Amino acid sequence: MSETTQTPSVILVQPQLGENIGAAARVMANFGLSDLIIVDPRDGWPNPKAVPMSAGSPVLKNATLAPDLSTAIAPFTRMYATTARTRDMVKPVMTARQAIADMRAAIKMGEKVAILYGAEQSGLPNEAVVASDVIITLPVDRSFSSLNLAQAVSVTAYEWNAMEDAPENFEVIEDIAPREDLIRMFEHLEDELHTAGYFHPENKTSVMIQNLRNGFIRGRWTIQEVRTFRGAIKALAKGRGKARATKS
Amino acid sequence: MSETTQTPSVILVQPQLGENIGAAARVMANFGLSDLIIVDPRDGWPNPKAVPMSAGSPVLKNATLAPDLSTAIAPFTRMYATTARTRDMVKPVMTARQAIADMRAAIKMGEKVAILYGAEQSGLPNEAVVASDVIITLPVDRSFSSLNLAQAVSVTAYEWNAMEDAPENFEVIEDIAPREDLIRMFEHLEDELHTAGYFHPENKTSVMIQNLRNGFIRGRWTIQEVRTFRGAIKALAKGRGKARATKS
Repeated sequence: MSETTQTPSVILVQPQLGENIGAAARVMANFGLSDLIIVDPRDGWPNPKAVPMSAGSPVLKNATLAPDLSTAIAPFTRMYATTARTRDMVKPVMTARQAIADMRAAIKMGEKVAILYGAEQSGLPNEAVVASDVIITLPVDRSFSSLNLAQAVSVTAYEWNAMEDAPENFEVIEDIAPREDLIRMFEHLEDELHTAGYFHPENKTSVMIQNLRNGFIRGRWTIQEVRTFRGAIKALAKGRGKARATKS
Repeated sequence: MSETTQTPSVILVQPQLGENIGAAARVMANFGLSDLIIVDPRDGWPNPKAVPMSAGSPVLKNATLAPDLSTAIAPFTRMYATTARTRDMVKPVMTARQAIADMRAAIKMGEKVAILYGAEQSGLPNEAVVASDVIITLPVDRSFSSLNLAQAVSVTAYEWNAMEDAPENFEVIEDIAPREDLIRMFEHLEDELHTAGYFHPENKTSVMIQNLRNGFIRGRWTIQEVRTFRGAIKALAKGRGKARATKS
């Protein structure tokens, strides 16, 4: 709830297990969320069971305790209720991804944003959903829908940072060998294979060469990999040279 | 590893805590993943500590134990290594979202897909990353990057179910060699290279092997290409055998 924060706050409403609070604090820090508000936790606060699961997360140390929901949500202007169950409410329902895009836009406009999660057993109380602007549903399987509290936090927190981070260009291969290096490598290999009597029957030669070259070309080998493999060809062929020498 | 599965398998490589295995099994079921393979877990298997955290997940009950990485990855044709650390490897790097799109497309083409996660403390061993086609990085904050194992599984599993549809357009490669064929091919090549005295200095051996394997794995070789190349290794090595015979 600090003034400088420009990330969504996470509000856990009446969480039961300290372990889950700690795990939520850990994953929040993993994905760049910093403000955790704990509303009326079942086992009191602080809860020593939260500490090991937090793995030293600064989010746990800076967490705020709120005595009730009204106090917790007081400063926010836009709230998102995470819930698996269908509620008979007329609210916009968003996926986590849509909700994060929505939050980012709201924060840009200066809004104060919070995401709400309910207790392990019962989920969010109706009044918390009513108080929210948006319902977030996670794509859980109907046959096994009970999502751990910290895992639910993890998915939303991940989406927060995933949007920030999406790399433009994901296949980064530096120093790809120019095609002429590859061709020299092929010729080297094929020369040695000819000498070794590999290409028979004669009329299959071009198919065999095609098979070999295709695999190498798809691999987009680097200059260093080409160099390493040429050394390998040389090493394998060297002994054969000796063999030929003994024949002549 | 069932025949009917059309979802990615999850492979946990040497996981330490039973609790995390259980939590991973739970969130897999939440998001529609069904096949869990546990490689050489630190505390043995079955591990009673996994049970409460699994919340009755059928994924835990059906999990497979594998004695080592090679056994675990043998049947797959496309593998994704989840890793936070930057590795000096030339592999495509994808976000979880990009990777899931890639997986869905690959599965449509009949590929067998697995996602790998490493141990809590150390992450994936280098050999597991080398054996994979793609690196998945999650958008963790640099200041607090240690993500819980089950949370890492949760994010990828969530993306699996969050993705509605796969892109239509994808490179079509039929009959991709299963990883065990590639590994046998590597061992064949490396054995011959050892015999040929190629690996020197000794301390560079693992880097040289890594260079060679990475290029081949990126190429996504077909069964036929593997067969052709193994013939090539044999041809090149045969002469050397004669050379050695003349020496003795």
